Amino acid sequence: MNLQTTGKPVAVVGSGVIGRSWAVVFLRAGCPTALFDTDRAQLERASDWIRSHELEGREHLRVGDSLADAMKGAVYVQECGPEQLPVKQKLFADLDRVASPDSILASSTSAFDMTEIARDVRHPGRCIVAHPVNPPHIVPVVEVLGGERTDPAVVAATREFLHAVGQVPVLLRKHIHGFLLNRLQFALVREAVHLLKSGVTDLDAIDTVVREGLGLRWALLGPFAVADTNSDGGARTYFGGHEEWIMNLMNQLGPTPDFDKALIEGIGQALDAARGETPREDVRAWRDRMVVEIRRLKAENPLRKTQEQPL
Amino acid sequence: MNLQTTGKPVAVVGSGVIGRSWAVVFLRAGCPTALFDTDRAQLERASDWIRSHELEGREHLRVGDSLADAMKGAVYVQECGPEQLPVKQKLFADLDRVASPDSILASSTSAFDMTEIARDVRHPGRCIVAHPVNPPHIVPVVEVLGGERTDPAVVAATREFLHAVGQVPVLLRKHIHGFLLNRLQFALVREAVHLLKSGVTDLDAIDTVVREGLGLRWALLGPFAVADTNSDGGARTYFGGHEEWIMNLMNQLGPTPDFDKALIEGIGQALDAARGETPREDVRAWRDRMVVEIRRLKAENPLRKTQEQPL
Repeated sequence: MNLQTTGKPVAVVGSGVIGRSWAVVFLRAGCPTALFDTDRAQLERASDWIRSHELEGREHLRVGDSLADAMKGAVYVQECGPEQLPVKQKLFADLDRVASPDSILASSTSAFDMTEIARDVRHPGRCIVAHPVNPPHIVPVVEVLGGERTDPAVVAATREFLHAVGQVPVLLRKHIHGFLLNRLQFALVREAVHLLKSGVTDLDAIDTVVREGLGLRWALLGPFAVADTNSDGGARTYFGGHEEWIMNLMNQLGPTPDFDKALIEGIGQALDAARGETPREDVRAWRDRMVVEIRRLKAENPLRKTQEQPL
Repeated sequence: MNLQTTGKPVAVVGSGVIGRSWAVVFLRAGCPTALFDTDRAQLERASDWIRSHELEGREHLRVGDSLADAMKGAVYVQECGPEQLPVKQKLFADLDRVASPDSILASSTSAFDMTEIARDVRHPGRCIVAHPVNPPHIVPVVEVLGGERTDPAVVAATREFLHAVGQVPVLLRKHIHGFLLNRLQFALVREAVHLLKSGVTDLDAIDTVVREGLGLRWALLGPFAVADTNSDGGARTYFGGHEEWIMNLMNQLGPTPDFDKALIEGIGQALDAARGETPREDVRAWRDRMVVEIRRLKAENPLRKTQEQPL
């Protein structure tokens, strides 16, 4: 099961925002890509969207007539269906039936355990979670983890394949609710909402502190690596010299807020005011363009001269 | 108390890592800057370090012979002494005695309430917290908040001044342990340590998820603005469509871990392995250079054509 050579056929099942973005990832890497969706209108819009990209390889996009047709020859399938467990279970059972026995079936799920999703398939060994960040053709991290019955060789092959198509796979050893990325994200969001509700400051200040402070470092180094650069003695003296202060601070962080209508509407209004006359889709397009620029900057200025890309 | 015109004399008291970096901020903005420290050897090293910068205005650095000498003519004083309340209280009482009555006395404290720090001064109205990110000449956010007796005009003047010298001030309405930045940072770090201790994954994976995922967006948009771009309907549908999932996730986040010696040593070893042969000071220099590049990228590609810099 060696998928390291790109150029092998891939299928994407589900043509929503995530599915069409995955198709760009695979096409860009030189993989003939079949896209399928039971919603033909959405499938049409998705293929138009993909073909609108300045993208070498876009001529290798194929729209599947049926699930079986889309799966023909595919060595790797990226499932991007609705985020509902029974739907995913049914879809995986169908995929398992029509896919060639040695192709990998990967789910974009952000929520479910592959042990559950693959409950009804005959070949659970080739079923795996590959959870992207939205949108995967812009933000490269993918969280990879198997279910209880996933073959370790499939885990290894999935990481290799995702790496080969230009993504950055990270491995989880076991299922945990929210995986890594959403747990870290919502740990910060929980405290951000707590600060907002406590009246200490306003939404703009919180977004600014991240955008012009924490985020500038975190685009370059993760939280542990930042701690390591914050003191001449590294993380040992940074954490070790302030244990009491840190634990005291952590113990005072806010509880889970009620995400009630009034809170969400208040956040919405503050964001409307901050965004002003700039349409939301312009903000998103700017974000995507700038993420690509930051990644280019990092690629052109590696920390180490021999930039290993460790798997 | 109009400090908007840069070019007015400033004093920096305390010449450690934060103090010397503040001096670069002020010199770069055209403010004649006096630096003082009771530790003459450190003061010497700091002024050498400042003069080693390619910095227009570095000839306007002056090393104070005494606290009173450094304060001569200063309209704004940035205190960067040791992070111990009695030391800050004594220092502020001394500063208050020798400073001209209408100069602003700002503390770089990351921990203390200005109500406490200014307990013994005669003019508490001009005492204020201006907490930077390390190092302030690279990362622009400054958390600004007064104590109970701080004059609102001083709060406004401090924000204007910090904005005029190129920083990004954000305002807190009242004291809260850890202010905004460290609360948000340690909310994420707490969960990162929890994930590490739970054995779900390793340190590299956690740092990678932030560096190649969350951080790429957070360098551009704060957590609320990210939520607003994650759904066509904005934050209202992003939060509002997943309240249950989000609250369930938040309720499962980890508790405050014990920062015991074994944990910290484990983190230190994992970071040593990740860093390999690259010296820590090279990582830090790279981080600082790249933060400057990301800020340049953002300045050259503003989200809005008329880039307001709202205070």
